Amino acid sequence: MTIHNKNFDEMSSPEVLRKLATSPFDLTAPGSLTSQRISQYTCQQNSFTLLYSTQRINEAVLAELQQLADESQAVEQFIMMKKGAVMNRVAGCDSENRQVLHTASRDIFNELPAEPEASGKARAELDRLRHFLNDLRNRRLTNQQGKIFTDMIQIGIGGSDLGPRALYHALAAFRNPERNVHFVANVDPDDTATVLRNLDLSRTLVNVVSKSGTTLETLTNEELVRRAYVQAGLEPRHHFIAVTGKGSPMDNPDKYLRSFYMYDYIGGRYSTTSMVGGVMLGFALGHDNFIEILKGANSMDIGAEEKDIRKNIPLLMALIGIWNHNFLGLETLAILPYSQALIRFPAHIQQCDMESNGKSVSRLGTPLNHQSGPIIWGEVGTNGQHAFYQLIHQGTTVVPVEFIGFRQNQYEQDMDIKGTTSQEKLVANLLAQSIALACGRDNNNPNRRFPGNRPNMVLMADRLTPRAMGELLALYETKIVFQGFVWNINSFDQEGVQLGKQLANKLLDHFQGMRQDKSYCPADHDDPGWALLKAAGMNRKM
Amino acid sequence: MTIHNKNFDEMSSPEVLRKLATSPFDLTAPGSLTSQRISQYTCQQNSFTLLYSTQRINEAVLAELQQLADESQAVEQFIMMKKGAVMNRVAGCDSENRQVLHTASRDIFNELPAEPEASGKARAELDRLRHFLNDLRNRRLTNQQGKIFTDMIQIGIGGSDLGPRALYHALAAFRNPERNVHFVANVDPDDTATVLRNLDLSRTLVNVVSKSGTTLETLTNEELVRRAYVQAGLEPRHHFIAVTGKGSPMDNPDKYLRSFYMYDYIGGRYSTTSMVGGVMLGFALGHDNFIEILKGANSMDIGAEEKDIRKNIPLLMALIGIWNHNFLGLETLAILPYSQALIRFPAHIQQCDMESNGKSVSRLGTPLNHQSGPIIWGEVGTNGQHAFYQLIHQGTTVVPVEFIGFRQNQYEQDMDIKGTTSQEKLVANLLAQSIALACGRDNNNPNRRFPGNRPNMVLMADRLTPRAMGELLALYETKIVFQGFVWNINSFDQEGVQLGKQLANKLLDHFQGMRQDKSYCPADHDDPGWALLKAAGMNRKM
Repeated sequence: MTIHNKNFDEMSSPEVLRKLATSPFDLTAPGSLTSQRISQYTCQQNSFTLLYSTQRINEAVLAELQQLADESQAVEQFIMMKKGAVMNRVAGCDSENRQVLHTASRDIFNELPAEPEASGKARAELDRLRHFLNDLRNRRLTNQQGKIFTDMIQIGIGGSDLGPRALYHALAAFRNPERNVHFVANVDPDDTATVLRNLDLSRTLVNVVSKSGTTLETLTNEELVRRAYVQAGLEPRHHFIAVTGKGSPMDNPDKYLRSFYMYDYIGGRYSTTSMVGGVMLGFALGHDNFIEILKGANSMDIGAEEKDIRKNIPLLMALIGIWNHNFLGLETLAILPYSQALIRFPAHIQQCDMESNGKSVSRLGTPLNHQSGPIIWGEVGTNGQHAFYQLIHQGTTVVPVEFIGFRQNQYEQDMDIKGTTSQEKLVANLLAQSIALACGRDNNNPNRRFPGNRPNMVLMADRLTPRAMGELLALYETKIVFQGFVWNINSFDQEGVQLGKQLANKLLDHFQGMRQDKSYCPADHDDPGWALLKAAGMNRKM
Repeated sequence: MTIHNKNFDEMSSPEVLRKLATSPFDLTAPGSLTSQRISQYTCQQNSFTLLYSTQRINEAVLAELQQLADESQAVEQFIMMKKGAVMNRVAGCDSENRQVLHTASRDIFNELPAEPEASGKARAELDRLRHFLNDLRNRRLTNQQGKIFTDMIQIGIGGSDLGPRALYHALAAFRNPERNVHFVANVDPDDTATVLRNLDLSRTLVNVVSKSGTTLETLTNEELVRRAYVQAGLEPRHHFIAVTGKGSPMDNPDKYLRSFYMYDYIGGRYSTTSMVGGVMLGFALGHDNFIEILKGANSMDIGAEEKDIRKNIPLLMALIGIWNHNFLGLETLAILPYSQALIRFPAHIQQCDMESNGKSVSRLGTPLNHQSGPIIWGEVGTNGQHAFYQLIHQGTTVVPVEFIGFRQNQYEQDMDIKGTTSQEKLVANLLAQSIALACGRDNNNPNRRFPGNRPNMVLMADRLTPRAMGELLALYETKIVFQGFVWNINSFDQEGVQLGKQLANKLLDHFQGMRQDKSYCPADHDDPGWALLKAAGMNRKM
């Protein structure tokens, strides 16, 4: 199959969609949100139901979005990606030139995986993880005093932190009650200090996660925690685990109790279902629950091969997102889960989406003349209703919303209060917000008018189980990948983080210089870093 | 003094600023960010230094922003607000018609407070809090078995949750190590279940916070927690504390161990320095630390009376925010603290800002024809650098940033690793990002080009102490209030949350109906709420 890699503005659909966007469907017109419309714009896939009647779309828009999906070969590209094509590249530019195979980390339930080599490696690491977890369970692996490990510190940042942390919180209801996990990410020394404050280090494993083995924050925090172990009279190598790339500076089994591998064809922000999430989630939730996460993710990866956008939730959400962003001109997207367990999920998707699609250059190396990824933000409901929903309903900026909800709670500790359960109150609020935003309401008092036409959609599933969580994770990963394919950008590199790193190193030279010489002054007097450092009072501190 | 309440578009400055915005200062021009510019655009107030040379401003813009501040009488309105003027109103519309006196809750260090009655009431509640905390410390107040209370659950949502929670996390380094606080906000029953899971209720106080005493989430969660106490054989009235308005349904001292009052002239999102934050923060940090917070906030309230925008950080930040939002057309604002302790501070400011200024009607009751409050979002650095900074540097949408940093850490558990401390690495990263965003950098590889001209500023202080936290809180509260005054909107009501509440109640009627009658169908067959409820599968669940 040939992939054309057509730039977004060279396809025919955008022109048609631009015209359609001049008079988008009016959700505020009386009788517009009929039960017929609601059931017509519902899609069921695996555990999830997508309700999208509250978007400003109609049959003409959906037909053209289908055309856009077809013209950009979004599904074909996704299938090629899963088969191991080199998708992480920008033509004509020095770039990472890598395969993109996070899907292989869960493509392990089929005799014939899409990319057998990567799936084989994933299976091998999973086997090693299973043995490790068995050793812990059977007390073959204990601390030096023969006691079981009760805690784990995960040291990682970005992709080695946000996804794993989001899933740990999401599935805490399913964890082994005797095991707790703590996270250190920030180079702020107070982050480590807070975590170390109340821990029995002798019963604690430390999982250090860095693909390159050179991440400044992670190495610094590993060193801080190692020193705490030594101060406590403990041997780090009986406690520390490494998750890193083969051949990285951290690939040194002598220093670690166990080492697990990750591969350069899995980007950090897509690595939750690799050993990056696996070691910690396996420790906390047990091996079987981690496999359930992988099964969920894999089932969504398979479903995403469907070409009919109305039967493919990640593709449909990707295209409606493009409709809102590129054609209705809405710059942000709020992800609002009505589930306390999903408290860190918006932060993970914020990373995955904005680092993937916050780009200005096409895969052909040409500057974009259209919007790429939106700004992603969000908090859990109902909390947000008492916080920023005022602006979503009545502000001067329209914010598209993706709601996520569940029919049942996790802990089954609910009660009837005033005739309804808390879960019913939660879901009633979610659905009410969807309608209020879409339809609005007029009022004689201008301060009580709700303009409506604020596009939103609702993802519903029965219960936030490990399998549903795996599906939800893959759903969003694939939505993001589809949008990148349609915009013809490389969703898999992150060149935009380099300049800040370089300038930070230059500033660190100044700190070292000042320490060695009180009258230090850099050779380049006009260096803005030095001037800013002085204006910030950082030289007085020394 | 007469306040004109002029609409934004009726003043002369916006027209001038619009012209200036056609060629804003170019931060990417070689030599533009000189040390002279950096020191010229630095403002010191109380503990904080504001570095704003990395904004797209020059002398002409600042002069016109001063003009805008003067013309809108922003400072005069702030002073009148503090003196008790009825600022919470929209002329000609049914509205709350209240004073706005959160400043009075910390205006207690002066013989002559701006509004003596409200400050007197604040002093009286603080006295009662001091006695309560003394009774706990001296073991005059214990549980039924004579043991001290070690834990507190704060039940509240929105303003009764976000600000207090942000400050608790911010100042955890200063807390009494024998006392822990837990928060329940969400009506999701899993929120309560998670908190109750590992607590010894017999040693736990429950602080229930609701001004109206009718907040659905708070009453539901109070009831869930009360039942847990009864199930544990404990008497709730020996554990539960109320913070509520006088005369509210919760104002029933028979049900509570102690009751503290809040007043209708303090809006929820501005209530952190009232008893809403005071009871919990006093328990966790001690009375003296809470007083330090109030001193910090009060000192910033006094500084905000300065009319010269270059000497008034909240006013200057308000005006630069308006420059970026209304004139440079940037719709969002990222708040990025380089301090792990401020992990929940962006969520609090998100609430305070978006609920205050997410409005579409002026205080004269006329529709706005300009932007009001921006979308506020953010996470702590350096974590964000490994997440969404890609888009901030190279995305197609420009995001203004407010960085917050400190010269020293909180725990003083830092170490030299490779010649610099973690705190130095943290601050080096912060300042490097400021320069990278402002100045950008060219490259032959289009994928490695940084366009720059991404406006940002940096707030620095020595250390995140209770006093600095109080200053920072008041700084942002007042910034938000100033923006509302300039836009001539009512920053103190929240009519936009009503429609969702009404529709949620209607949906709850359906849930009750279905429970009573399996063949239930509402009279209004076309009710979109009923249709959406069915499409979401919530009827199958029953």
